[in-house]
Amino acid sequence: MTAAAASTTDDQRFADLHQVLEQGAMRKAARMLNALQPAEIAHLLESQPPNERELVWSLVDAEYDGEILTSLNDDVREQLISQMDAGELVAAVGGLDTDDLADLIQDLPVTITSEVLKSLDQQRRERLQTALAFPEDSAGGLMNTDTVTVRPEVTLDVVMRYLRRLKDGLPDITDNLIVVNREGSYLGVLYLTDLLTHDPEETVAEAMTLAVQAIPATWGAREVATRFEQHDLVTAPVVDDSGLLLGRITVDDVMDVIREEAEHQFLGQAGLSETEDMFAPVLLSARRRALWLGVNLLTAFLAAWVIGRFEDTIQQVVALAVLMPVVASMGGIAGTQTLTLAIRGLAIGQLSSKNARWLLWKELAVAAINSVVWAVVVAAVAAYWFGDPQIALVIGVAITINLLAAALAGALLPMALERFGIDPALAGGVILTTVTDVVGFVAFLGLATLFLV
Amino acid sequence: MTAAAASTTDDQRFADLHQVLEQGAMRKAARMLNALQPAEIAHLLESQPPNERELVWSLVDAEYDGEILTSLNDDVREQLISQMDAGELVAAVGGLDTDDLADLIQDLPVTITSEVLKSLDQQRRERLQTALAFPEDSAGGLMNTDTVTVRPEVTLDVVMRYLRRLKDGLPDITDNLIVVNREGSYLGVLYLTDLLTHDPEETVAEAMTLAVQAIPATWGAREVATRFEQHDLVTAPVVDDSGLLLGRITVDDVMDVIREEAEHQFLGQAGLSETEDMFAPVLLSARRRALWLGVNLLTAFLAAWVIGRFEDTIQQVVALAVLMPVVASMGGIAGTQTLTLAIRGLAIGQLSSKNARWLLWKELAVAAINSVVWAVVVAAVAAYWFGDPQIALVIGVAITINLLAAALAGALLPMALERFGIDPALAGGVILTTVTDVVGFVAFLGLATLFLV
Repeated sequence: MTAAAASTTDDQRFADLHQVLEQGAMRKAARMLNALQPAEIAHLLESQPPNERELVWSLVDAEYDGEILTSLNDDVREQLISQMDAGELVAAVGGLDTDDLADLIQDLPVTITSEVLKSLDQQRRERLQTALAFPEDSAGGLMNTDTVTVRPEVTLDVVMRYLRRLKDGLPDITDNLIVVNREGSYLGVLYLTDLLTHDPEETVAEAMTLAVQAIPATWGAREVATRFEQHDLVTAPVVDDSGLLLGRITVDDVMDVIREEAEHQFLGQAGLSETEDMFAPVLLSARRRALWLGVNLLTAFLAAWVIGRFEDTIQQVVALAVLMPVVASMGGIAGTQTLTLAIRGLAIGQLSSKNARWLLWKELAVAAINSVVWAVVVAAVAAYWFGDPQIALVIGVAITINLLAAALAGALLPMALERFGIDPALAGGVILTTVTDVVGFVAFLGLATLFLV
Repeated sequence: MTAAAASTTDDQRFADLHQVLEQGAMRKAARMLNALQPAEIAHLLESQPPNERELVWSLVDAEYDGEILTSLNDDVREQLISQMDAGELVAAVGGLDTDDLADLIQDLPVTITSEVLKSLDQQRRERLQTALAFPEDSAGGLMNTDTVTVRPEVTLDVVMRYLRRLKDGLPDITDNLIVVNREGSYLGVLYLTDLLTHDPEETVAEAMTLAVQAIPATWGAREVATRFEQHDLVTAPVVDDSGLLLGRITVDDVMDVIREEAEHQFLGQAGLSETEDMFAPVLLSARRRALWLGVNLLTAFLAAWVIGRFEDTIQQVVALAVLMPVVASMGGIAGTQTLTLAIRGLAIGQLSSKNARWLLWKELAVAAINSVVWAVVVAAVAAYWFGDPQIALVIGVAITINLLAAALAGALLPMALERFGIDPALAGGVILTTVTDVVGFVAFLGLATLFLV
């Protein structure tokens, strides 16, 4: 057998499993299912409508329950947890890493939390408390406490003999041993690759790497992800304020951070949460969506109210009603481009007060050029359509004004919102279209009132 | 010195460097700059407006040029490459990994490509050709050829002696050695952690892991990323159709894939490319944006044309002009939520023909509930505002129709577009708002024409 032949894509395997489930071959399905990684089972659960989801969950070996739960998004996780009894839950969290356990325990019912705590031994309880002391999205919340440490003065030969005596082997995803002094302060790392290639008579101090800086436990998840990406890290040590080693972060958790941040940005724009379950119960989804629709309805009514101020003008020149969505829409589209660029820039740390002014001028210049181009096109179409050069002039000027306003709002909004502690990915789009609607309608209908009637 | 004290965040260091640059202390700036990782310098370059960018680039040590270029986004990379001469470019690509070289060489002017190829030794040229044989966004394009292989029948002791004789040590990010047979077929991996903890008298065959399936070189980057995320991989072997080992993929490149896919999705919605340089020249940006505005203008004119069909009705009941944006906007917002959820589902492989019908029914049910709620609210406001119960009824029904159409379009569009080979992240939003605008205006103005005039 070649391994290549065994490497089917997830899509393929999920399709196969689906077919077996549909045929009702439950034993076979369970066997296929439990051959998957916990994260793959979690992904499969998230892909199922509610009924199939419960069926799949019932086929999973209990020993994987804990790891699967930690891999699920919050919505689906809560659903499944609510159907488990205390005994099942205590058993499920038994074998988890401290960081996973810390994430999970905050979602458990209070009565069960205390049972879980009781079931832990002294060392695990202490480690859990360390992890719980930090917010979930900080370096401290991401870290695990399964560090293997060595002292600088011993030789590599001694280190290797020490490793061979480790009862449980080395933890998953270990690319280095962490070098600490007598007090437990972080000094550097000894890469396994160096341990294996250097002369065994060398000391750890000679073979270790000083270039890997420890990450303070207080750093945010986003800063941790940037550090991993830019330094090509596989694991990184985490320290407290005084440099004492607390734990380590592994790259698998960092990949999750990158994925979650991206989802937050993408889904946030539509007023959705990154924990949104695609197959959530209808009533739950309807309630969540209703709020977003309500907020947007308010801004739509504001735009309607603005139009209402010009009822008389529209009555006299009904062509205005026909053309006004064009003005608003052009502003919205152009503004969204600037806004999206600025939100991305903020998120990856490339937009700051240092270069914000430059971006603003550039976006205004781009808007100026495009407003001239498109104002002429729209004016020409309007002139031809309604045979009225004045309406053409009015819509051309209105579009120019709205595109400039859109660039201004798109470039400044994200930084302004962030300063007030509001998430630009969530609120930016709503506010921007309110601006471009209002400016667009006021400019177009206002100019028309002045010059056309 | 504790390492924690040395761990400043990127923001902090970038601000410091910026200050030094502004003070004109070029030597100091160069020293600070060249102490950074290539990826950090790339990030810094991307954060600079054009003039500062050239200044920073001129301060960078030539030896980092190649790695920095590979870390830059395409736009900025092309800019900098266009200013380098052949000698500089040949020197820059000298020390690069094969996968990076393969990416970069496709951006070089043809005349320089041949010089670069001439400068490579036989082995590197062959490896480059292997890498170039695969698309950039496939497993083959992501892989590197710096594999260290061992044979199953030797003992761990022999492996360790072999490693100690390696002239250059092990490549960066090596968590395992790849086990191949005499023909070079992939058999499994020997984790360094197992090599270090097992009895040195064991053979590789006894200590190796069979569970890591090799990735076929033809897999897409997205499938590779999913595999890494779900199996918590650090590196993975890549094989050809017959199971022969071709190379390996490392997690740092996978993090880049995840990041780029996310950017593509987020920026694509606004018609921007993920290679978009925030500080691109104004004319270049204006030209790119103009296209997107033009496409959207067409759909805006389509909506205007629809409204134009009802000019007489609007003339008689001018309140319709005031309220019609509310109907279109509610549809657009609700539809975008469904669309965003469906695009995300497709992207992460959780939406397929198996469960699409379930999603459609759920979204229709959510829309039905919300349309009743908001139709009543909007109707009440309209009745109060214009004192006309008939207009209230018409707008209520029109909103209901539009929200249902929005759910239908939002749920079905992504899969339909993908089937036609069109990127839903790029085209989905434009088509959706066209649908909700047209349906909204036709429903509202059409019903009004039937019942109000």
